[in-house]
Formats: sequence, structure tokens, C-alpha cells
Amino acid sequence: MKDEDSNVLFRIKLRLQRHSLWEHIKGLWFSRKLSTHGIVVVTGSGSFPKVINRGGEIHAGHCQFYEGVRLEIGKGASLIIGSGSYLNRNTLVVVETKVEIGNFCKIAWDVIIMDSDLHPIEGKILENKPVIIEDHVWIGCRSIVLKGVRIGKGAIIAAGSVVTKDIPAYAIAGGVPARVITTRSFIEPQAIKS
Amino acid sequence: MKDEDSNVLFRIKLRLQRHSLWEHIKGLWFSRKLSTHGIVVVTGSGSFPKVINRGGEIHAGHCQFYEGVRLEIGKGASLIIGSGSYLNRNTLVVVETKVEIGNFCKIAWDVIIMDSDLHPIEGKILENKPVIIEDHVWIGCRSIVLKGVRIGKGAIIAAGSVVTKDIPAYAIAGGVPARVITTRSFIEPQAIKS
Amino acid sequence: MKDEDSNVLFRIKLRLQRHSLWEHIKGLWFSRKLSTHGIVVVTGSGSFPKVINRGGEIHAGHCQFYEGVRLEIGKGASLIIGSGSYLNRNTLVVVETKVEIGNFCKIAWDVIIMDSDLHPIEGKILENKPVIIEDHVWIGCRSIVLKGVRIGKGAIIAAGSVVTKDIPAYAIAGGVPARVITTRSFIEPQAIKS
Repeated sequence: MKDEDSNVLFRIKLRLQRHSLWEHIKGLWFSRKLSTHGIVVVTGSGSFPKVINRGGEIHAGHCQFYEGVRLEIGKGASLIIGSGSYLNRNTLVVVETKVEIGNFCKIAWDVIIMDSDLHPIEGKILENKPVIIEDHVWIGCRSIVLKGVRIGKGAIIAAGSVVTKDIPAYAIAGGVPARVITTRSFIEPQAIKS
Repeated sequence: MKDEDSNVLFRIKLRLQRHSLWEHIKGLWFSRKLSTHGIVVVTGSGSFPKVINRGGEIHAGHCQFYEGVRLEIGKGASLIIGSGSYLNRNTLVVVETKVEIGNFCKIAWDVIIMDSDLHPIEGKILENKPVIIEDHVWIGCRSIVLKGVRIGKGAIIAAGSVVTKDIPAYAIAGGVPARVITTRSFIEPQAIKS
Repeated sequence: MKDEDSNVLFRIKLRLQRHSLWEHIKGLWFSRKLSTHGIVVVTGSGSFPKVINRGGEIHAGHCQFYEGVRLEIGKGASLIIGSGSYLNRNTLVVVETKVEIGNFCKIAWDVIIMDSDLHPIEGKILENKPVIIEDHVWIGCRSIVLKGVRIGKGAIIAAGSVVTKDIPAYAIAGGVPARVITTRSFIEPQAIKS
């Protein structure tokens, strides 16, 4: 095992230890809906996370879902969620082709991520385009990420943004549509000796 | 009966056939709250659509309401919803004078439509202005349509927009406030022979 | 007692008389969660307002909370809400240091007010900055007010705005990020003789 891997695993372990037994039990119950998964926890007393699966797959690492999360998976579509990531309250992910969420991503509450417009414009074909959210991305509350967007590693999306185009790594972006405001310095978290 | 009418009716029939018996039963129950109505279906297992009627009227054609829809109708106000249209999850319509939604409109989830600011600015009179949404309009999720706006036939409003001014027919508009981004070509759906 | 004070008290009294016994009973129940409070009413049949208090304080005057309101109070943080103000449906207030909402403020539904980004940027310290909302401010539905913002007396924030910087008194502001659109004339409500 690489040093980096052991570091990552240790941090995930740390993260998961913070959760109550009840969150783990709810996570186990929820993980029935997932094709493959690591340790999954479900947080919050509101409406249980909901999966509307029309024939696709969900692959989740060690991750956390909050109350009210809604995952809509189309036929043959795949949603991939990395380890150490969470989807906060009422986040909606609509997947008709592919949505990838990396490791250690923070998806805040009321976020919408869609790889499809769901309806074609009359006279045109409905075109779905994958959404890729790389590792360590942080998406602020009530943002919308639309089809075909790639958000680069470590980027931050400000609250209330609508992301319609690619955002480069380590950028801080915001607005409707989202534009790069500034760039953050990214310090890779240090290896923790266990 | 005109050829066009028979076409429209056939398409509505097609649309309604897709719904389950349970959606029709819930639709019947919901239609008690409507002044006049066609075939109404209610979709989704969340909170039942809610009408807060302070003395106005709702006239609905053959249409579909999703869970969490909320209609607030003021005294003497009227809400008109055409046939073949739907209001998706948690859409809120606030009517103090008049809101008209045409035929075959797609109103996505979390949309807010208001013909009133609900509060006057001190020293001014509260002015309500009708909202007109013409046929075949598609309003993207989490958009807000404010008082006095007319959205022309076949226009598309991008997700997360705030519409404060008129949008011409066949335009694709978006942003806060919403501006025309481009124009779509609109192909009138062909008559279907039954 | 100053004439102005008696005026204010009379208007609050008028406001509270409009509420039902049931709203007052729910208000009493809710006020257990408040450190100090005046007459509190709770409106709406949806989910009861929720307080997540990690060791801070809430000081509320005579005010009104709607269904689905959520107050998250961090350790040592304080939330102050003036008299004659209300927080409409599903408003979220996140307080890590201090949020002050003045008297006679109208906070519309789905508003988010945060004095913290909740997460630091890696390599930086998480910096919280108080949010001050002065008297007679009206915040339109689904707006977001971010850390460090002061909204001046009598200002109006348009629906769907994201407020990232100070807004001067009596301004009407809107957009993402919010900018001043115009200035209102503010007529101080006249003293009412009781």
C-alpha cells in the first residue's frame, strides 16, 4: 500500500468515527440501493435519502448522505461518489449518462447536479453530457451544476452559483453563470501517522 | 372540431395514459380545490399539493401537479393553467391578481411564480401585475418569475434564473436577472393520426 | 416612555393580535429553545421550526417564525432577532459568531443567512464575520446573505439575490452578487394613537 493511500484511508477512518451508531445503521439500510459501496452513513432526522433508479448504477465509496438527498438514475446511467465525500441536505443528483464525484468532496445543502436537461428542445435530440467533479471540490449551498461541466481538483463554487462551464483546478468561482473569481492556494493535507 | 384541436386532444390523451390509477385518484382528490378543471393527476409520494385560497379561483385544464406544489390565491385573484402542462415538485405560485400558464408548459421543480411583491414599499401602494406564460414554455428548475412578466410562446428559461422582464417567443433566456441568450427554432409538433 | 417606543409597542401589539391561539401555543412551545424572548408565534402546519444549538444563545423579541425555519447556533455564538420581525418558511440562519436581525424585518421564505463559510480553505483559518441586518429590512424570497454583510436600515433585497457585500440604508439591491439597483424613499410609519 502506498503511503498516500494509507493516509487517505486513515483520514476516512477519522471521518467515519465521528458518526453515531444510528447514522451507521441508517447508512446500512440506505446502502441496499447502491450497486457497490464502502462504509455509508446517513445523517439527519428529516426525510430519508431517496433513490429513483430506472436501471442505472450507483457506486459509492466511504461517504455520507444527509436527509432529503435525492438521486435520480436513468437507464444505463452511472453515478460514482468517492470516499470521504458527503452530500448535504436535499442535494439532488440527476444522472442520465454519468456523474462522477471525487474523493473528499463537500457538496453543501440544496445543491442540484444534472448531466441532462431532461427534455429535448423540439426538433433536436436530447443530448446528455457527463459531469465530472474532481477530488477535494467544495460546492456551496444552493448551487446548480449543469451538464457537461468538469470542476477541477480543489475548486470552490460559491453559494447560489449556476455552473454552466468547466471550472479549472483550485479556482474559486461564483455567480450566475459561474465565473472564476480568484484562485486558492492548495496545500495537500499532510500524511497523518497513525 | 378543427384538425389542430383533435391533435392537441390526442396528445393530451397520450400524456395522461402514462399516469397510474393512483395518480388519477390523487388528482381527483386534489381537483376539489379547483374551480373548473379537466383531467388532473397528482404525482409523487411527498407532501400533497397545497392550495391556500383566500377567495380567488383556479381554472385548470388537463394537467399534472407534483408533490409539494403550493398555490396561494388571493381574494378575487385567478390562476389559469392550460392543458398538457405540469407543475413539478415544490413549485410555488402566488397569485394576487392573475397568473396564466398556457398549454403544454413544463414548469420544473422549485420554481416560484409571483404576480405580487406581497408587501408594499412604505409610502407606496402595493401594485400587482399579471404574469402570462404562453404555450409551450419551459421554465428550468429553481427559477423565479416575478410580477408583470410575459414569457412568449415556446421560450425556455434556464435553471436558476430570475425573470424580471418580458421574454420574447422562442427565446432561450437565463441569468439573474434573466437575459435572452439565444433563440431556438421551434418546430410545431406534427399532427398525430389516431 | 418615549413617544416612539409607545408607537412601536402599539404596532407590535397590532401585529400579534392577528395571530391565532394555536400560533401562540406553538410559539410558547418553540420559545423553550430561546435564551430570552418576547411574545413568539409559530405559523404554518409544515415541519416545526428547528434549533440546532451547539452552545450559543438566541435572543428574540416579539417575533414570528414560520414552518421549516432552521436555526444553527455554534458554540459561543449569538443570534438576536428584534421585535415585529418574522422569518418565513424554511429560512435558515447559520450563526458561528453573531447574527443580528433588527426590528420590523421581513425575511421571506427560503432565505439563507450565514456568518460563516463553515469550512476553512485548506491552509487558511476559518474566519467568521458577523451579519447585521438593520431595522425595517426586507429580504426577498430565496436570497442568500453571506458572512460579514451589513444591510442598512430599510433596505430591500430582491428575490433570488446573493448578498456578499454591505448594502446601504434604503437601497433596493438585487442580483448575484447583489448590487444596488435604486434607492427607495423611506417614510417612517406615523405614530398611531391608541
